[in-house]
Amino acid sequence: MSVLPTDSLSTPRFVGLPSFMRLPMATELQGLDAAIVGLPSDSGAPFRTGARFAPNALRAMSVMLRPINPYRGHINIFEVLRVADAGDATCVPGYEIESLAALERALDAVVEAGAVPFGIGGDHSVSLAGLRAVAKRHGPLSLVHFDSHTDTWDSYFDGKRYSAGTMFRRAIEEGIVDPARSIQVGMRGSLFQPADVSQSVDLGLEVITCDEMFALGLPETARRIAARSAGHPAFLSFDLDFVDPAYAPGVETPECGGPTARETLSLLRSLEGLDLVGCDVVELNPSYDGPGQITALLGATVMAELLAILAEARVRERSR
Amino acid sequence: MSVLPTDSLSTPRFVGLPSFMRLPMATELQGLDAAIVGLPSDSGAPFRTGARFAPNALRAMSVMLRPINPYRGHINIFEVLRVADAGDATCVPGYEIESLAALERALDAVVEAGAVPFGIGGDHSVSLAGLRAVAKRHGPLSLVHFDSHTDTWDSYFDGKRYSAGTMFRRAIEEGIVDPARSIQVGMRGSLFQPADVSQSVDLGLEVITCDEMFALGLPETARRIAARSAGHPAFLSFDLDFVDPAYAPGVETPECGGPTARETLSLLRSLEGLDLVGCDVVELNPSYDGPGQITALLGATVMAELLAILAEARVRERSR
Amino acid sequence: MSVLPTDSLSTPRFVGLPSFMRLPMATELQGLDAAIVGLPSDSGAPFRTGARFAPNALRAMSVMLRPINPYRGHINIFEVLRVADAGDATCVPGYEIESLAALERALDAVVEAGAVPFGIGGDHSVSLAGLRAVAKRHGPLSLVHFDSHTDTWDSYFDGKRYSAGTMFRRAIEEGIVDPARSIQVGMRGSLFQPADVSQSVDLGLEVITCDEMFALGLPETARRIAARSAGHPAFLSFDLDFVDPAYAPGVETPECGGPTARETLSLLRSLEGLDLVGCDVVELNPSYDGPGQITALLGATVMAELLAILAEARVRERSR
Amino acid sequence: MSVLPTDSLSTPRFVGLPSFMRLPMATELQGLDAAIVGLPSDSGAPFRTGARFAPNALRAMSVMLRPINPYRGHINIFEVLRVADAGDATCVPGYEIESLAALERALDAVVEAGAVPFGIGGDHSVSLAGLRAVAKRHGPLSLVHFDSHTDTWDSYFDGKRYSAGTMFRRAIEEGIVDPARSIQVGMRGSLFQPADVSQSVDLGLEVITCDEMFALGLPETARRIAARSAGHPAFLSFDLDFVDPAYAPGVETPECGGPTARETLSLLRSLEGLDLVGCDVVELNPSYDGPGQITALLGATVMAELLAILAEARVRERSR
Amino acid sequence: MSVLPTDSLSTPRFVGLPSFMRLPMATELQGLDAAIVGLPSDSGAPFRTGARFAPNALRAMSVMLRPINPYRGHINIFEVLRVADAGDATCVPGYEIESLAALERALDAVVEAGAVPFGIGGDHSVSLAGLRAVAKRHGPLSLVHFDSHTDTWDSYFDGKRYSAGTMFRRAIEEGIVDPARSIQVGMRGSLFQPADVSQSVDLGLEVITCDEMFALGLPETARRIAARSAGHPAFLSFDLDFVDPAYAPGVETPECGGPTARETLSLLRSLEGLDLVGCDVVELNPSYDGPGQITALLGATVMAELLAILAEARVRERSR
Amino acid sequence: MSVLPTDSLSTPRFVGLPSFMRLPMATELQGLDAAIVGLPSDSGAPFRTGARFAPNALRAMSVMLRPINPYRGHINIFEVLRVADAGDATCVPGYEIESLAALERALDAVVEAGAVPFGIGGDHSVSLAGLRAVAKRHGPLSLVHFDSHTDTWDSYFDGKRYSAGTMFRRAIEEGIVDPARSIQVGMRGSLFQPADVSQSVDLGLEVITCDEMFALGLPETARRIAARSAGHPAFLSFDLDFVDPAYAPGVETPECGGPTARETLSLLRSLEGLDLVGCDVVELNPSYDGPGQITALLGATVMAELLAILAEARVRERSR
Repeated sequence: MSVLPTDSLSTPRFVGLPSFMRLPMATELQGLDAAIVGLPSDSGAPFRTGARFAPNALRAMSVMLRPINPYRGHINIFEVLRVADAGDATCVPGYEIESLAALERALDAVVEAGAVPFGIGGDHSVSLAGLRAVAKRHGPLSLVHFDSHTDTWDSYFDGKRYSAGTMFRRAIEEGIVDPARSIQVGMRGSLFQPADVSQSVDLGLEVITCDEMFALGLPETARRIAARSAGHPAFLSFDLDFVDPAYAPGVETPECGGPTARETLSLLRSLEGLDLVGCDVVELNPSYDGPGQITALLGATVMAELLAILAEARVRERSR
Repeated sequence: MSVLPTDSLSTPRFVGLPSFMRLPMATELQGLDAAIVGLPSDSGAPFRTGARFAPNALRAMSVMLRPINPYRGHINIFEVLRVADAGDATCVPGYEIESLAALERALDAVVEAGAVPFGIGGDHSVSLAGLRAVAKRHGPLSLVHFDSHTDTWDSYFDGKRYSAGTMFRRAIEEGIVDPARSIQVGMRGSLFQPADVSQSVDLGLEVITCDEMFALGLPETARRIAARSAGHPAFLSFDLDFVDPAYAPGVETPECGGPTARETLSLLRSLEGLDLVGCDVVELNPSYDGPGQITALLGATVMAELLAILAEARVRERSR
Repeated sequence: MSVLPTDSLSTPRFVGLPSFMRLPMATELQGLDAAIVGLPSDSGAPFRTGARFAPNALRAMSVMLRPINPYRGHINIFEVLRVADAGDATCVPGYEIESLAALERALDAVVEAGAVPFGIGGDHSVSLAGLRAVAKRHGPLSLVHFDSHTDTWDSYFDGKRYSAGTMFRRAIEEGIVDPARSIQVGMRGSLFQPADVSQSVDLGLEVITCDEMFALGLPETARRIAARSAGHPAFLSFDLDFVDPAYAPGVETPECGGPTARETLSLLRSLEGLDLVGCDVVELNPSYDGPGQITALLGATVMAELLAILAEARVRERSR
Repeated sequence: MSVLPTDSLSTPRFVGLPSFMRLPMATELQGLDAAIVGLPSDSGAPFRTGARFAPNALRAMSVMLRPINPYRGHINIFEVLRVADAGDATCVPGYEIESLAALERALDAVVEAGAVPFGIGGDHSVSLAGLRAVAKRHGPLSLVHFDSHTDTWDSYFDGKRYSAGTMFRRAIEEGIVDPARSIQVGMRGSLFQPADVSQSVDLGLEVITCDEMFALGLPETARRIAARSAGHPAFLSFDLDFVDPAYAPGVETPECGGPTARETLSLLRSLEGLDLVGCDVVELNPSYDGPGQITALLGATVMAELLAILAEARVRERSR
Repeated sequence: MSVLPTDSLSTPRFVGLPSFMRLPMATELQGLDAAIVGLPSDSGAPFRTGARFAPNALRAMSVMLRPINPYRGHINIFEVLRVADAGDATCVPGYEIESLAALERALDAVVEAGAVPFGIGGDHSVSLAGLRAVAKRHGPLSLVHFDSHTDTWDSYFDGKRYSAGTMFRRAIEEGIVDPARSIQVGMRGSLFQPADVSQSVDLGLEVITCDEMFALGLPETARRIAARSAGHPAFLSFDLDFVDPAYAPGVETPECGGPTARETLSLLRSLEGLDLVGCDVVELNPSYDGPGQITALLGATVMAELLAILAEARVRERSR
Repeated sequence: MSVLPTDSLSTPRFVGLPSFMRLPMATELQGLDAAIVGLPSDSGAPFRTGARFAPNALRAMSVMLRPINPYRGHINIFEVLRVADAGDATCVPGYEIESLAALERALDAVVEAGAVPFGIGGDHSVSLAGLRAVAKRHGPLSLVHFDSHTDTWDSYFDGKRYSAGTMFRRAIEEGIVDPARSIQVGMRGSLFQPADVSQSVDLGLEVITCDEMFALGLPETARRIAARSAGHPAFLSFDLDFVDPAYAPGVETPECGGPTARETLSLLRSLEGLDLVGCDVVELNPSYDGPGQITALLGATVMAELLAILAEARVRERSR
């Protein structure tokens, strides 16, 4: 199996089924450093639905990306890492709990093969499947969470405990996220209850709201994230509604007044020293994304930045 | 409570929140002949999702309709029937079984008040909630089902028995649909298994495929439907994918090669003598409907035709 | 001024500002047989608005049309007729009465120059401006009206007498339409009042509803139109909601269950012997037309058929 | 009548007709502190039209908002204020002057009942109806106006004096706006005449252009607004084209180069001490807003911030 | 390599990259009866461009199709034929001649492996690549061509001889299409020159215009096609603008007044006895197809019918 | 020929075919200071195609602009400059080299008449036609290039040397761009090869990446551009993907993380002293631009700023 993506200077990007960044489709997982895995479940979505179509929408725009990341020393991601697109996990539409279990099984296989899973959601509840799979190997994880919402409510409609608004409380309860090593960044907007943000602090998480992030400045925010996570295996979860809806209209729960794409990418590009053992980019909903599909492109760009974080870490490890 | 809709010659149709046909919102159900009830659940949808937004989309286009139906003797529906828009039943997104139960509770209240429920789906599985509620009062029902699919599979993903592809088999198993009095019309397109259509016949249902319908002619088709249902309380379920996708692009599972809107309305307008005790118009998905929202308009038009069937029946009863 | 359209086999259709069928823009009106005139007013629209953008939308799709009409003896329209695109009349948005006056002034100039005006609406009330301008030269006109609505109500919101629902009653009152020579074709759908259709008959108009049209057959319908108008100067007004919304989603007041585009064009192509002195194609609303802009294309195609009617008449006249 | 909105943690946001922020619909106005009123008129629109559909579009996205505003001391708006959605005022499409009169009558009722009207436009000319109604109770008002245009021209097409470009000059002429207490913020872009901005200064208004706003900084801009209005009853009018088109594509007259949503919300959140007696959010046009409907969401968010300004003022008053 | 598509009753259709009908991707061509090949070139398009994105758009909707065709004896296509999705041929955007050569090379490989190529265009000029590749093995071909245009012009802009309007004249000149065995069906609409249709007859082709098709009736049309092609290896080329734009808005050159989808499918389903050695479905342009993507679905459905023709032929051969 | 645009305070902007800023269409070129020229070719586009429709899309939104530029001393562009819209150059779709030649011929005529060409692309390769035409008169040009990509690759697919990714290398090779006087601004995003940016430096160009631009600050960036170009005839080429996709979704190759529209316009407005002899705004693709058409509006606004640069220069010259 080749490990290099199709060269877009030789073959036009519109040629062929669009795998993530035109990577080869995985025929087996052994030997991979990282695997792209679609997590096309939206049964956890409380309002807009349709994130089940997100993995392929993100892939379709990812063909515009190129292998070299100039923000981390012109690293060529795919010369450092063996990455493949492992296709999609399956799910059970309309059955949230069974869906999470099905996603977890697929992610288990990735983790067991020694690859870092790069999940493409799906609604945000899919992170619980990712955390469960990764924690089996690495123990309680440092959660690095970008979002406009905390997603630490206790339950949602009809008292249901599994949804896109509750999974990080569940993860802490399950002992797979270590709140003392975890941080949430970007919270903003109107609240259901006064405790919507403080409930995360009560759980032991560090929270940097959107206003606090701008007050601190992006470099200091990056530094705090790194400090919180330092030395622990980290799971980074990126909800696209972290970004302002102008840059990410195609999400399930947009929240006005967020950072720009440039600010967002700048923050990610300045993250140093993360020990990334799993991650996901979630809440893309292509039905709401307009013909330019800019949310999908931004989601793919974020994913490529996360790959660069891993690649840089591997270079660093190898040079020791 | 007024029982007449807002007059669109006096107040522009874009003024005010759009209830179905600008009817008053029900403040109580007692005394109503019919109640419009949104059934905004899409947890049963196996492919496209988003029918949760259908009730309000159908209402928004229904404001273009007027109270008099020239195809049934210029009957003024709202002078014959007391109708109100009862708003929406609630549901539990991502939890199909609990959603059906929640919908059923709301429909129970309508039926117990003596009103005929006119449900706006939602994915097609919501019909099971409607059938259950109506059968409690009327016993096993004659199902009159327009669709391009039979929806009589035994189970769907992961062996789940409740979904938009299985609910009519469930209804027969539950004894709330009498297959000997029931009929399915419009089936077409490619099949999963050779038995996709014959499985309905094996359950005791009469099936008229789309090709058979055109071979018989629409008047004869209407006559067969009437004959099958004659003398029994009927539940009419209209899946908008019965119609060709050119006329109904905004559905969950479009199937090319169906009847036109004119043929469809002609068939409904020639149905005679149904004893309508419940009905629904389902599978509208406004995200796929284009800016003209023609599927929503067609769905609303179908619903108005069903109201006219009930109105005509009541006139007939009263004149006895 | 050249009188031939740009040749689309030599210069791609996307090159240049899109005049109607790539005709030259009129620099003067004298000597023209026919002039295309945009009538971009939508102040008469009772529901959807935006038909002010219709003339340019229709022009943009008209570039797909070619000069030879194979349905009338392979006539090359522009070898028979001197036609130019005269641009748009102006209007006063938000001021219906003043808008009609402004449109009328522009159309007066066309008629006074001896050209037949081919108007592109705009909401349907613009027909009143056209009828007034043409009747000044030709006297009371035979109205040939294709629509799903009669547009013969007496008044609309707040008692206003000028709107897209009232202009043909106004025209009869003003003596510029002779109802005994006029005919309305295609009415269908739900009604405000039992008299919605009969009010036209009461005014002296002949009405062929959509159902009657199909019962008669299209050739007989064409014959009746011709018979009604025979020997009188005719103004043909084509409301795009005559056609089913699947073929014309981009209209102001869609009505389900109409003829197809093929049936519509077939009817127009079989009209014989009309003495066309004015016409319009109205109610296109490009905001509701979807990316394929099929309503605009159909509107342009209808306009080209009307040009062919005029061309054939001129050939007939010249050969006498 | 309940005064609390539907709880979106209990009932999904897509359930039920979407009133503003899921508030109860007003059955009477007495006793309300504030009333949401749709002003669905677009007869004043000189270019794009369709703002008549804005009130319901803004409501549909407002269901994403929650009652607590963390930017003003975690105030729960609806525990402080009794607010209801009063539905829409009517209007007379195509008749600008009559439309303004009809809107004014509805707003009179709100003001007379003692409630502060929160208007949802409609084109910007609807502000004249709001100013008239509110000034009857409070006398000449301090206008706080956010926009990219001054809207102080003398007349528009055909010399018409009432349109979306002239209403603030009219309001000053009518003595219902006190220019010495009024301020316009955000003007930018190309001009018709050199005096487009200075004409406002000539009328006595203070003007802070977009460039001046950024030169001053947002906190100082907020301070100047507060200083200008201090101690006078204020009417705040927010034209969504104040914001850059990336954040508000769905407006009638977009102007490139404006502030971001974060800057806009930050400015509104730092306004202190306004005595808000009326306000509106105008110029939303959902037809131009894309599937993500981010302009509608931003409009709803702005409205919620204005409610928070009123709520904070009431808390301040009550604590005196 | 498995030869059966993914079972959509087990794994939701939105799971995984969408190959045609969820078939396995070909890892080699030997042993295949048929291969789906994307031909994503649009350099031949004279007006709308973007058909380069069509193969993946058609694939995305093809996941809705099921393996059994009830119109040809409930044949299970994939139990009869070994079919795989061979991905896309490459091309050279902006270089029409080089693009055709690149497409031809890919198709050569398919034909040389003994598989029948099922091409997904791309603009219609890609048919020339298909005809060339297939004729190398089978000699001069019987062309069965469904379209609203003849595509037999001699040259297009700047005298260029290769474009989507000229390829069938080229094919005849190259001796790879035998006009005496070939037929064109569906021509309609306005013409550039009187000879637009007769030029095909002059080349020796049989032409059945759209009007003639309806005059003959669909069964007789099918019979004539079969008679013309009988006993010769046939290449069937299906331009989606054969169908009316209501059913196929997403095409490059729509032509109003065509057959419905039901009529189209009925015609294809009644074709008997074709010796299909190659085919393509072309001119899909997903940018113009609306959110329901009904053109893509129709294109996929047509392709599935063509597969059924081949399957039926193989069954017939094997039973001899 | 009048040289003033239509007054949008007198005639609504939606009236008439939309020439650029409602300027008169050129009937001859002599005597013009500047000519707007559509360059509707997209044969050079390596991924998304459809920029052939950009000139008219940009014109349609340009009607929102007004003649006075407040950022350069309230200059009235059209009182200083004689400008007309010269319509479109023709091209040969699918034939890149012939298309460039055809565009060049049209631009030659403009330059020979003494007018400065303001080109509306088209894909970015059209700049080569502009540079060739202008360099014939002015010799090697100073290129001022805004973009997210360098477009200095050597060849693209199949070794082709002419495409939207290679034209600036070609221009340097042809001696029509003087790299020592030229500058590229805004490069960002992932790279094909480590040399993607440095290849420009190797050619002798100055490059300011997007990150460097923000590190320098916009005023210093403007100063560097001015310094690089000072005293030489300059050709300014503006690729709309310079701007972040939130502000310009309708482009051929979007790149996340760019400047805002306000930053972009601020940069252009602070450019001083350019001797502008030609320019273009390229890579608009209206199919990807959403209903608000904000990319087209931004493109038109950029073009108006470039006209103001020329107007200011002419005022400066005349005052010497």
